Amino acid sequence: MKEKDWKLLKTEPAIDLNILNIEYHHYQNPRNNKVVKTIAISGNDAVNVIALTKDKKVLLVRQFRFGIGDYTIELPGGMVDERESNIVAAKRELREETGFAGINWQKLGTIYSNPVFMNSKITHFIVESASAQYPTELDDAEDVEILTLSVKEVYEWIDAEKIQHPHTISAFYFARNLLDF
Amino acid sequence: MKEKDWKLLKTEPAIDLNILNIEYHHYQNPRNNKVVKTIAISGNDAVNVIALTKDKKVLLVRQFRFGIGDYTIELPGGMVDERESNIVAAKRELREETGFAGINWQKLGTIYSNPVFMNSKITHFIVESASAQYPTELDDAEDVEILTLSVKEVYEWIDAEKIQHPHTISAFYFARNLLDF
Repeated sequence: MKEKDWKLLKTEPAIDLNILNIEYHHYQNPRNNKVVKTIAISGNDAVNVIALTKDKKVLLVRQFRFGIGDYTIELPGGMVDERESNIVAAKRELREETGFAGINWQKLGTIYSNPVFMNSKITHFIVESASAQYPTELDDAEDVEILTLSVKEVYEWIDAEKIQHPHTISAFYFARNLLDF
Repeated sequence: MKEKDWKLLKTEPAIDLNILNIEYHHYQNPRNNKVVKTIAISGNDAVNVIALTKDKKVLLVRQFRFGIGDYTIELPGGMVDERESNIVAAKRELREETGFAGINWQKLGTIYSNPVFMNSKITHFIVESASAQYPTELDDAEDVEILTLSVKEVYEWIDAEKIQHPHTISAFYFARNLLDF
């Protein structure tokens, strides 16, 4: 496919929100040469984890999400720290949020967080034989409740719109051929 | 499940980016009573569409996305206008971006765009017997290339990370039992 060149003419800061940095990017559209002022939000990449217990249950977390001002049910996960690999971040986030650790870590896939506005990526992992092994370590902005569902229940809860987090749904998309119903 | 109360103590504007409005929301964490300053980005809801042609191909669009500064392959779709229903927006966006229209519209599901930071929702639709019937109407910030893939190819392209848009992957998650391979 042809790669037409969207010229980046100018970049200017909009606001720095500490964990998100927002810039205006001025692009020239190769179709009509018009210049458009666009929003580009940069932030750290993130990871999430389908952690399967020994009895094949899926570990989920219920937490308050500030973007929507409401609770979500989603996979454990979080942002990748500076100079941290995705797999190390995934193990750390699973431990910090739930106290769980497991074996046979596999990468499932990588997606964009939201390419319309943000440059960050999310990498999905799956881990088996997960069990509680550590105390949780929550930061000041977290309050996490752990729940376990069967794989069948997870798919039912997504279809019923009780689980609506896109990055959780994407992880289960990638795992669709690995999970028994 | 218990609904602990995260008290919203204060809301203050951060920046208005025209299509996105960003606020700081100060919440009191019910776990530790600590007050945290959080980011809440509000924007319009959006829709996207799995449009199947008469020969069961899927219509996709390739376009430059400003958040990542690169091209994506994704489903046609876009933002819902003020006082517009999701289904009307889906039909309009399919027509404007691709010139296609179809029959047997069905809602597949609704997800959050990114509940960590944003309050907007995405609703997925599927439509059959789609064919080119109208001229496209692109806005100044768009340059859309249309491509058609078999359902099998779409799933392969997602697995190969050639399609990485979470809202496109989510739509195919919801459609997994409706589509023939």
